[in-house]
Amino acid sequence: MSDVTATYRVPSGPDLHKKAEGIALGLTVGSWTNLPALEQSQLQQHKGEVVSVTDDGSQATLTIRYPAANFSPDIPAILTTVFGKLSLDGTIKLVDLSFSESLAQQFPGPTYGIDGIRKQLGVTDRPLVMSIFKGMIGKGIDEFESQLKAQARGGIDLVKDDEILFDNPLTPFEYRVTIGKRVLDQVERETGRRVLYAVNLSGRTYELRDKARRAAELGASALLFNVFAYGLDVLQALAEDPEIPLPIMAHPAVSGALTASPEYGIANQVLLGKLLRAAGADLVLFPSPYGNVALAQEETTAIASALTEQAPYRSAFPVPSAGIHPGLVPQLIADFGVHSVINAGGGIHGHPDGAAAGATAFRQAVDAVQNGLTLEDAAREQKELSAALNLWGVPQ
Amino acid sequence: MSDVTATYRVPSGPDLHKKAEGIALGLTVGSWTNLPALEQSQLQQHKGEVVSVTDDGSQATLTIRYPAANFSPDIPAILTTVFGKLSLDGTIKLVDLSFSESLAQQFPGPTYGIDGIRKQLGVTDRPLVMSIFKGMIGKGIDEFESQLKAQARGGIDLVKDDEILFDNPLTPFEYRVTIGKRVLDQVERETGRRVLYAVNLSGRTYELRDKARRAAELGASALLFNVFAYGLDVLQALAEDPEIPLPIMAHPAVSGALTASPEYGIANQVLLGKLLRAAGADLVLFPSPYGNVALAQEETTAIASALTEQAPYRSAFPVPSAGIHPGLVPQLIADFGVHSVINAGGGIHGHPDGAAAGATAFRQAVDAVQNGLTLEDAAREQKELSAALNLWGVPQ
Ligand SMILES: [Mg+2]
Ligand SMILES: [Mg+2]
Repeated sequence: MSDVTATYRVPSGPDLHKKAEGIALGLTVGSWTNLPALEQSQLQQHKGEVVSVTDDGSQATLTIRYPAANFSPDIPAILTTVFGKLSLDGTIKLVDLSFSESLAQQFPGPTYGIDGIRKQLGVTDRPLVMSIFKGMIGKGIDEFESQLKAQARGGIDLVKDDEILFDNPLTPFEYRVTIGKRVLDQVERETGRRVLYAVNLSGRTYELRDKARRAAELGASALLFNVFAYGLDVLQALAEDPEIPLPIMAHPAVSGALTASPEYGIANQVLLGKLLRAAGADLVLFPSPYGNVALAQEETTAIASALTEQAPYRSAFPVPSAGIHPGLVPQLIADFGVHSVINAGGGIHGHPDGAAAGATAFRQAVDAVQNGLTLEDAAREQKELSAALNLWGVPQ
Repeated sequence: MSDVTATYRVPSGPDLHKKAEGIALGLTVGSWTNLPALEQSQLQQHKGEVVSVTDDGSQATLTIRYPAANFSPDIPAILTTVFGKLSLDGTIKLVDLSFSESLAQQFPGPTYGIDGIRKQLGVTDRPLVMSIFKGMIGKGIDEFESQLKAQARGGIDLVKDDEILFDNPLTPFEYRVTIGKRVLDQVERETGRRVLYAVNLSGRTYELRDKARRAAELGASALLFNVFAYGLDVLQALAEDPEIPLPIMAHPAVSGALTASPEYGIANQVLLGKLLRAAGADLVLFPSPYGNVALAQEETTAIASALTEQAPYRSAFPVPSAGIHPGLVPQLIADFGVHSVINAGGGIHGHPDGAAAGATAFRQAVDAVQNGLTLEDAAREQKELSAALNLWGVPQ
């Protein structure tokens, strides 16, 4: 039977079986034991079920199965069922969520995913390197063009808008797309390398599809999307739209409001991992474990696993972000593998010789690891990497 | 200058001015002190500003102003600016948010609000009474019809779907609307009282507008909407649509994931109060301070104030929910005033003489308070109220 299974973390305590039973019934058929047998048989297929209750004396988990017969196969209905009223009911965190096979097939997963993006870029065997525009608010299209050129020429694979750059008169969305395409086409002619630029898709929800379709027509190569400022179902609609044939990069903006508490909300691996992948994100940004804005290592690993392991969807690229500099590349590859994106802002723009050199330093660091060299050894021959390591060091 | 001002609660500590300055710059122009004077003058209108920093030794608040020049006038852009990356940045809760007058005017506020709904119902001088369908999952349209009839005949002003009742083959959306209208028209002919039924608007985001327009054509009287399973901007689009001339009731499902932690996320008065009102909710459900699923009294008061005080929008109805029975009516009116909705599920369906008697008991309790009687006095003459008080009591 098609269903969704949710696991909750709650405080340890007595009566947890009763609590779990109350949830399983309360969020499905309402009541059970006092119902007449005929009604019970009618409602059997709608009744929630307690799968397991565990209690280690400090924390407990409740796992509950909700029949898919109770909801339409969309994320808003599923979230409302498994963590609607329940999100308001005391100390409780949604820590896992899984769809049965037939339910999972109602969701698209990534349209491109890791393999599709690698194919677009012609890069098969190393982590991708991504960078972010720096301080574009209040700046004009010339600044946009020169920043994009420097990053792309330096050897970056993907460049993204800052998530706080919205449609604006100085660098309007369509200009960014059009000029972005021109710059990246030029860099491809010069270097033979294709670079993707993720333009921030923003504005009113009901305008997004037309705007994204228009971007595709104008030659956009990717979209950045602040999913949690909108809704997961909007991401899904963009991902499913055949007239929006673009990889979608999900930004974690606002998600901390849902994930940051250990006691309440939704676990990162569920929200940024399973749900973003099911809804169709091709790349997923999340705070790396290394910077100031950081997640615990085990959380970042759980997100990356949820994006890449198990059927039925394509894998999405994990993009650990914030606090990244070239000295961290060996650690990043050790922690997230070759099939990840190394994403830097300050670690590129802060390079002593500028953003192009910053991009080159990252590519040199990646090549060093791929070739089995230490960064220090590689830096002897490569001045961009050398300058980066002098500035940021290599964590031991 | 048009702007949004956000207040954050953070742990007490040293360097809070520096932290606040880092936020104000980091989420706007990026950097400041090292910029050339020319660039500073260009960026002046885009620069975030620290309004105040307070620290009482245990908790601190940071108030920061972000120029509206930096974002498009939509809730996703505003949330991404004020609590996008920042939501991921350690222990921090967004506790207040205010729009300058010109920014506020970009949002619709309630289309009907308290006055508009009172006008539709012809009820000017007392709290409204609302009820919820009971256990409709797996039940057919006959059950829907008989429940609606009982509640409406008993004296209820508004009836709402359960938020976990989605579009389904047993009670499809359009059937609920059509049959709901027929029942309520009949009750109006019988009693002279108009009753509103809020049908749960659910499904895929990009289908909601057409579905709501169709509901309006079919004679729907109100919509229930799980805003936080979708997005505030979707609510706004529904509220602004002239072809959806229906009051919208916002359900708090999923909102606990954002609001429940004292240290992270978004305060109830911001999310359920200010933002729902700005986006156009006409009625806002939130957990009452009295039941099992409860909010602290000060939080419910803050939500109600945010829904009803100050310009520039119409007032939205506060609907404190969960754990409500007739014995609580004096307390509800004391806490939330006459301009609120008294909403009950179990407190109506659990009445010893059925849902119609349950509805009547609530109306009797409301009339008693309005007439300056104690519930106990009123119950001497009124058997429905008497039975309710015998079952649930009157909290002292
Ligand atoms: Mg950013
Ligand atoms: Mg309900």
